[in-house]
Amino acid sequence: MAAIKPSLAKGTRDFSPAEMEKRNYIFNTLKKVFKKYGYNEIQTPSFENLSTLTGKYGDEGDKLIFKILNSGDYLAKVDETLLAERNSNKLIPQISEKALRYDLTVPFARYVVMHQNEITLPFKRFQIQPVWRADRPQRGRYREFYQCDVDVVGSESLLNEAEFIMIYHEALKALGLKDFTIKINNRKILSGIAEIIGKPELIVDMTVAIDKLDKIGVDGVNKELIERGFTEEDIRTLKPIIELSGSNTEKLEQLKTVLAASQTGLKGIQEIEEVFGYVSALAEEETLAKYVEVDITLARGLNYYTGCIFEVKTNEVAMGSIGGGGRYDDLTGMFGLKGLTGVGVSFGADRIYDVLEELNLYPSSNSTSTKVLIVNFDKTLESFTLPLLAALRKEDIAAELYPTAAKLKKQMSYADAKQIPYVLLIGDEEKESGQLSLKDMASGEQVRLTREELIERLK
Amino acid sequence: MAAIKPSLAKGTRDFSPAEMEKRNYIFNTLKKVFKKYGYNEIQTPSFENLSTLTGKYGDEGDKLIFKILNSGDYLAKVDETLLAERNSNKLIPQISEKALRYDLTVPFARYVVMHQNEITLPFKRFQIQPVWRADRPQRGRYREFYQCDVDVVGSESLLNEAEFIMIYHEALKALGLKDFTIKINNRKILSGIAEIIGKPELIVDMTVAIDKLDKIGVDGVNKELIERGFTEEDIRTLKPIIELSGSNTEKLEQLKTVLAASQTGLKGIQEIEEVFGYVSALAEEETLAKYVEVDITLARGLNYYTGCIFEVKTNEVAMGSIGGGGRYDDLTGMFGLKGLTGVGVSFGADRIYDVLEELNLYPSSNSTSTKVLIVNFDKTLESFTLPLLAALRKEDIAAELYPTAAKLKKQMSYADAKQIPYVLLIGDEEKESGQLSLKDMASGEQVRLTREELIERLK
Repeated sequence: MAAIKPSLAKGTRDFSPAEMEKRNYIFNTLKKVFKKYGYNEIQTPSFENLSTLTGKYGDEGDKLIFKILNSGDYLAKVDETLLAERNSNKLIPQISEKALRYDLTVPFARYVVMHQNEITLPFKRFQIQPVWRADRPQRGRYREFYQCDVDVVGSESLLNEAEFIMIYHEALKALGLKDFTIKINNRKILSGIAEIIGKPELIVDMTVAIDKLDKIGVDGVNKELIERGFTEEDIRTLKPIIELSGSNTEKLEQLKTVLAASQTGLKGIQEIEEVFGYVSALAEEETLAKYVEVDITLARGLNYYTGCIFEVKTNEVAMGSIGGGGRYDDLTGMFGLKGLTGVGVSFGADRIYDVLEELNLYPSSNSTSTKVLIVNFDKTLESFTLPLLAALRKEDIAAELYPTAAKLKKQMSYADAKQIPYVLLIGDEEKESGQLSLKDMASGEQVRLTREELIERLK
Repeated sequence: MAAIKPSLAKGTRDFSPAEMEKRNYIFNTLKKVFKKYGYNEIQTPSFENLSTLTGKYGDEGDKLIFKILNSGDYLAKVDETLLAERNSNKLIPQISEKALRYDLTVPFARYVVMHQNEITLPFKRFQIQPVWRADRPQRGRYREFYQCDVDVVGSESLLNEAEFIMIYHEALKALGLKDFTIKINNRKILSGIAEIIGKPELIVDMTVAIDKLDKIGVDGVNKELIERGFTEEDIRTLKPIIELSGSNTEKLEQLKTVLAASQTGLKGIQEIEEVFGYVSALAEEETLAKYVEVDITLARGLNYYTGCIFEVKTNEVAMGSIGGGGRYDDLTGMFGLKGLTGVGVSFGADRIYDVLEELNLYPSSNSTSTKVLIVNFDKTLESFTLPLLAALRKEDIAAELYPTAAKLKKQMSYADAKQIPYVLLIGDEEKESGQLSLKDMASGEQVRLTREELIERLK
């Protein structure tokens, strides 16, 4: 076969050892926290039946689903007319019956429905797997990327919502982040506001406009509200909501006044208060005040969430949200299992990766796995170095003997490139005396140690 | 949208929590060993350009590659004639430019070529990722399955081969296997045999026939050799090879006599002897004799391997090989980088999973992550149980409070289903006395402990 110059498929990435170490550090830290809160891991297949995915993400989403071409003579039974018309869209279901996972939510819903007789509710799961989208690739946006979802289904208790705040708090702290905000809102508050104004059908337009407060200011928001069909009177009603300020407690008190006439709205406020009650019992005093913020402009996936809504951002780096989620009441309805409530959050692994990179928060020992390289001076010395190599590994010390007696410079470059922290130099003299020379690659310092001292030092 | 009864795509599997724990146990055990020997993890994208994969696996392999349909109006520029002819095969490159990874070897070769300026040779990597094949699904054969490859490129040293024997030995021992055989052969020995007989072109036929010795006996093998074009005289020459017996050393000595006239064959023997020399220096005395076996019928991927060839099987369970690999001399030639030698092995994760299952070798604590469930008797007790829950987690003890005051039976069923080993019962009495009741779910035993004693016990 002819040699071709290889390239990556558009929008995809290789992960080299140093990147893998960092990614694994993030995933392992998150997994440890999820497990501590009683969440267990599941995985679903990379591709699903096309019919499982189609229609779940809107028309735009459907276009972004990667379809897998049927194997064999896939055109054999295709409709004559559609083929003649080159009707790409309508031909899809005839030549493709499988598609790549677009998110983790729909496969999870499918999983819950298919396994409903074997799982015990409440079912707490986390899932960390790649998803694929036929988006136009651009900086920071890939066609293959990891999602990291944590959900509990089958429990109405707001303790779950509180524990997600705890999980965010504990996980981000464990990753070394110091200043971040866990924003909380409740869909029922947004419904209440739309109800008060008498325009429940404009709830989306309202939240989209209010959401821009930070960027375009009060006047800008008001202008947009008018454009979107609200009246001057509506804007007067909305004023205290848009200008909501103070502590979380103060905001909730102001909202109670504004939403006094809406049962739904008051229910939303009460839910947040109950969540805060749980958090206060679970966390140190400062947590709620310092890390959690009521933000009624928060509206993520409005058509989907029914109760509390979360979004997390770091305040140390300019970056979009690094996580979010909320309560939904009908995850599995699309597959015929009605009335199953759930709540879940996700972590934006790629963004968290960039944040830790920018803040230099990765553990330094993380960049390599090998602790010591034994320099190979001479094949005849192998009778001495090989048993030592075995002894180091027996003590669970990651160790390598350079495989040939190459030039010292080459062997040192190898240690450098792999960021191996120690190099062991064993020549004839060391073999005779039993005093081994250990070089610290960072400081350049060299010490002479017996075999026992060496093992003790490296352990 | 209409509710559809969901199903899995053919040949794919969900992994539920208990399965994930077991799979992670296997992968983590393997990873730990790989790292100890200086191998670092990489990952490549799930899909590659179709041209990267096509032509690397033979015609049959090409058919089994899952192709991804181009996005958008994929038929717009398709060749009129091919479309009219419904030429499924020739249309593929016009409507598909990407395909799912078929193995880890070709993407690794692509990786090495693309990253050649940033990696330092010898480059030691491992890779554990799913691959996809459009095979007809059957028991134990899936369309999505994990491969687990460890390779070093850029080093001719036979120390690498010896270390793969050590890696197999250490990893399988760590997984609890006691009786397994690491078979070794050398492509050069097979070439030498074909050379001696004067029929190098029949090397594949010869090894295929010899490979059946266990199943069809000497007479059966001889019959097949005749059918495949060998003469009675060839069979006389082959006799001592087919009937090779004794210890590894004895086998190698016999081979030296038979292959005395073949430089290539003698080189193959010498390579195995050198590998054994390294293993003897690295391992305990019994390892070579007990776990390693010269098997000249071993021929895996004959067209690919150029030096030592490995295959591993367990002797505790009836199962095909659970691993294999070998030395290759031209991994990256297909992408224009010639002359890069390498050696690698793989672990059959799905089969190892089944072996451990059958031998009941999974750690028992492995089936769940939550250590203790606090029973929820009454909402008013939450002021007492919530801080305790937080205290347990602070000590890194995975703990849950059942989210509502459901019936005790229901809460106990939850603990049972999740295989949570301890349940904490805190009623009014326990709250008053500070003596908490901890129930061991396995033994049914119940003890009363102070908060400090509880934490000590669960840690």
